Amino acid sequence: MPAHVLSERDLTFMLYELFDAEALIERPRYAEHSRETFDAAIATGKAVALKHFLPIRQKVDTHQPTFDGNKVHLIPEIKPALDAVIAAGLAAPASDFASGGMQLPLIVSNAAQAHLSAVASTTLGYISLTDANANLIEAHGSTEQIDTWVRPMREGRFMGTMAMTEPGAGSGLADLTTTATCEADGSYRLSGSKIFISGGDHELSENIVHLVLARVKGAPKGVKGISLFIVPKFLVNEDGSLGERNDVALAGLFHKMGGRGHTSTALSFGENGGATAYLVGEENKGLMYMFHMMNEARIMVGTGAALTALTGYQYSLDYARERPQGRLLGNKDPQSPPIPIIEHADVRRMLLTQKAYAEGAYALCLLGSQLADDEKTAETEEARAQAHTLLDFLTPIIKTWPSEYGPKANNLAIQVMGGHGYINEHPVEMFYRDNRLNPIHEGTTGIQSLDLLGRKVPMNNFAGYQAILAEIHGTIDKARDTELSLFAEQLGTALTELQQTTTTVLGATAEKNIDLVFANSVSYLEMFGHIVVAWIWLRQGLAADAGLQANPHKNDEHFYRGKLQAMQYFFRCELPKIYHWSKLVREIDSTSFAMQAEWF
Amino acid sequence: MPAHVLSERDLTFMLYELFDAEALIERPRYAEHSRETFDAAIATGKAVALKHFLPIRQKVDTHQPTFDGNKVHLIPEIKPALDAVIAAGLAAPASDFASGGMQLPLIVSNAAQAHLSAVASTTLGYISLTDANANLIEAHGSTEQIDTWVRPMREGRFMGTMAMTEPGAGSGLADLTTTATCEADGSYRLSGSKIFISGGDHELSENIVHLVLARVKGAPKGVKGISLFIVPKFLVNEDGSLGERNDVALAGLFHKMGGRGHTSTALSFGENGGATAYLVGEENKGLMYMFHMMNEARIMVGTGAALTALTGYQYSLDYARERPQGRLLGNKDPQSPPIPIIEHADVRRMLLTQKAYAEGAYALCLLGSQLADDEKTAETEEARAQAHTLLDFLTPIIKTWPSEYGPKANNLAIQVMGGHGYINEHPVEMFYRDNRLNPIHEGTTGIQSLDLLGRKVPMNNFAGYQAILAEIHGTIDKARDTELSLFAEQLGTALTELQQTTTTVLGATAEKNIDLVFANSVSYLEMFGHIVVAWIWLRQGLAADAGLQANPHKNDEHFYRGKLQAMQYFFRCELPKIYHWSKLVREIDSTSFAMQAEWF
Repeated sequence: MPAHVLSERDLTFMLYELFDAEALIERPRYAEHSRETFDAAIATGKAVALKHFLPIRQKVDTHQPTFDGNKVHLIPEIKPALDAVIAAGLAAPASDFASGGMQLPLIVSNAAQAHLSAVASTTLGYISLTDANANLIEAHGSTEQIDTWVRPMREGRFMGTMAMTEPGAGSGLADLTTTATCEADGSYRLSGSKIFISGGDHELSENIVHLVLARVKGAPKGVKGISLFIVPKFLVNEDGSLGERNDVALAGLFHKMGGRGHTSTALSFGENGGATAYLVGEENKGLMYMFHMMNEARIMVGTGAALTALTGYQYSLDYARERPQGRLLGNKDPQSPPIPIIEHADVRRMLLTQKAYAEGAYALCLLGSQLADDEKTAETEEARAQAHTLLDFLTPIIKTWPSEYGPKANNLAIQVMGGHGYINEHPVEMFYRDNRLNPIHEGTTGIQSLDLLGRKVPMNNFAGYQAILAEIHGTIDKARDTELSLFAEQLGTALTELQQTTTTVLGATAEKNIDLVFANSVSYLEMFGHIVVAWIWLRQGLAADAGLQANPHKNDEHFYRGKLQAMQYFFRCELPKIYHWSKLVREIDSTSFAMQAEWF
Repeated sequence: MPAHVLSERDLTFMLYELFDAEALIERPRYAEHSRETFDAAIATGKAVALKHFLPIRQKVDTHQPTFDGNKVHLIPEIKPALDAVIAAGLAAPASDFASGGMQLPLIVSNAAQAHLSAVASTTLGYISLTDANANLIEAHGSTEQIDTWVRPMREGRFMGTMAMTEPGAGSGLADLTTTATCEADGSYRLSGSKIFISGGDHELSENIVHLVLARVKGAPKGVKGISLFIVPKFLVNEDGSLGERNDVALAGLFHKMGGRGHTSTALSFGENGGATAYLVGEENKGLMYMFHMMNEARIMVGTGAALTALTGYQYSLDYARERPQGRLLGNKDPQSPPIPIIEHADVRRMLLTQKAYAEGAYALCLLGSQLADDEKTAETEEARAQAHTLLDFLTPIIKTWPSEYGPKANNLAIQVMGGHGYINEHPVEMFYRDNRLNPIHEGTTGIQSLDLLGRKVPMNNFAGYQAILAEIHGTIDKARDTELSLFAEQLGTALTELQQTTTTVLGATAEKNIDLVFANSVSYLEMFGHIVVAWIWLRQGLAADAGLQANPHKNDEHFYRGKLQAMQYFFRCELPKIYHWSKLVREIDSTSFAMQAEWF
């Protein structure tokens, strides 16, 4: 029997018992939906994943894209698989009915794509990036731009990319050098090189819509001089038909350790005089616009990392149930039959750790989707603003925590399977490779940690920071009078530690070198992330406890007990780590900062 | 400029300043050696590595071995590279002059192979396993067996393997089913299947000598009924020439995530009536003999993991020095030029962490080699026995700590390089894949943790345990009156915690379920490993301090300051983690043990 891709029971639990997605039906935007339409979308996502992507999963990994100097070649199975996603309405299931979408809540859309993302991994990136690209143009582009570029993307005819990174600049966007000059007719010509552009070239769609960061000639230095342009692979005629090839060339493909479903390209713009480019919004506001896509992509990265962790967990779990090996330590009788390895305490530890990481991570991402829904459709303006504040604050954590702990979960999936986990008869080694990209792209863990500590925490007079603390306190208060009171108490203590640490470290910026004060920013992010995930686990614990109170049938009882045990695991084996991190942050530990370059 | 493979300054430091390898020259076995011959061997190792292995490193990785149903095909560059190692006398540099070796101390042999192991990674495994195979036969085989099998292995004509794992048994050696029957002439016929046999088939040598664990018909069940056999690929005639093909067939190759320099094979013995097999020593003592090779292989695994970590560190360090990107946080001037990324505090953290892990791990492995030297050549019988006790005790730590922390170091090498670390233009993603095998083969981390807590600690009335504690206390006493007294004190406190935890957990075995009591054995191994590595770092700190006192020239001063900073990193950022692990162990935390299979 092939291993399960994901636990549907868990998906149902998160969606309906933890986040009460059914309540969204009350909102006007989702009035035509019901639990049935939600479940149908999820079932469709699963069906497409199992039919079109599961059978080609290994082939996608072992047959990297190639470039013959003219065109990119992918294995032929990829296009029909992506077409099946589009045909099923799953390319942008949250987009408006008017633009051909299913107008699903984002949290349901996330769940509907869960099996796809878990199985197709980065192959789905062609579609998700297109969705995020279209969303950006919808938010910041002109009506004409929406008509020209978004419509065909929503129809699945065009695909989209995000082109930021340059060979000389990497994460240092302030130094990007791609240049645009304004012509007499108001159009722009753009020249420069971009690297690591996912989906930057292929034959999967009629056209590719690049969203490119560039500097208009004469613009200020630094990030305040960056503008955003639409640069299509093919120009589009007034009637919407494809025109001539734009001055955009594929310079080469990168060969990645994993994530081979999605081409990673180097692109040259303007080698023959300049690529035709269309300014989005106003000049010099490009980075702000790009954050619309980047923030969405950050949630997407976290979600992909979480789902890759979940499916690796599921695979190693199924394996552990079926693989007999060894005996319990207390059994010295070599005549007795070997037991399934799931009976060994250390294998249980590795499975439980994966469960705690992966389910914690995915619930965190679904929370992000819920906040994105609330930001758009909560009843009051105040509630919408509150959701926006929380989501904005949590984005670096939603991006990073799954990206860091997802690979750790996949590492344990390999370890559970021993030598069998290290070879490509099983997909867990691929999950491990795929997931390793996530702490890098869309802002490395280091970048996210500075965003959190240096920007998001003090922003708007600590509004987001106070908002998340209040949310966590709310759950603690709720749990205090239940059987989970001990966990509530531990989380409260952790929160106090976090607050003291935050006050101390930000206070130190007044008197000390800022690079020293922020030298342990990753430890701060680790601490904050663990507290947020502990909170998510306490919420899962409360939901499981409620499920148990409802006198469930046997299978459900097992499920809830497992949830509670994973919560316990997180509180006993993970949460205490924050005290080590907080000490480094609070004491402004100078060990790394003081290490001189010539001492290495 | 290509990146350095390893720091030679560091190799010199470890060998001569930390472990005083020069003192070995006083011992009769090494009387013909001098610092010059030691250094010459190291220089030769480096030269062969750079000339023969560095140019083919990537090709070896991207061109996996293939099997055409008849023969195994490797890329043609591998054989001349291995031949160059053999020609340079580096295949078994510690073996006797009499058998064609250089009779080097093992610690020097380890350093002489360091560049080879760092560059050739698993390709060198053909040679190292052959060495370990020959060492086993030398220790436990008959004179005739030594003459027939060891001599050609020492000459580089034959290669050797270790064949333990079976498809149905994995780590559970008690259940292995390969069977040998004794013929009238005293020879044996052997039948069964083995998997994950490294170097199990190839065309690199005239013959392959498999050391195979099997059960003689009628032997007791379990590990007490296992015997060890020599099973060659080709039989050997009395004059030493090759005879007919033995009944050993390659059933297939495994496709590994990394470590592609070394074939991993499935072997079928006896498909045509039984393979001719020669019993080593006595029946039913096979596992004990095999431990001779396994223990050596475990040190080898640790060493390989440490060197892969070191070379990844070196590569990312060289990259970080040369790659300009971004500015310090305190600098808001976009006109100022970007700085090398090594100036960013978080990049320094990632480099310093790698340094602390990789140099700590390799020093630990060199200590293992030093103990193996002392075991053989220390002046008094008592000193030899003491070294044996210590090495035996430390083996699970020397195997595991580098295997667990080496991949973590390689993970950071990728992260330092961002997207560039994830693609195969640079080798760090390969190091990450290669190193991932190490926590699995030669006994998983879980197996090692049970070996440590359940066997090595209480063994011989805690002799090894007490011996290592005494060693650590010796260093603490020495450091107490120096500038490193604070670190000495911290290590002392950690040691007290370790002792209390050990007493508590082993005491609990009297009254509680043994599987519960040992459920946190990996945390115990983590704790013990971190304390041992902190000790190694304190020793490195003392040696660096001595170097500084000697008023060194500027480059050396920088080197010593770096050592002291890495030591500080280990004590501030790593050692405190033991208190979290010890709590789980001491409290016999039941979270994992209590998780029921049906709750997952």
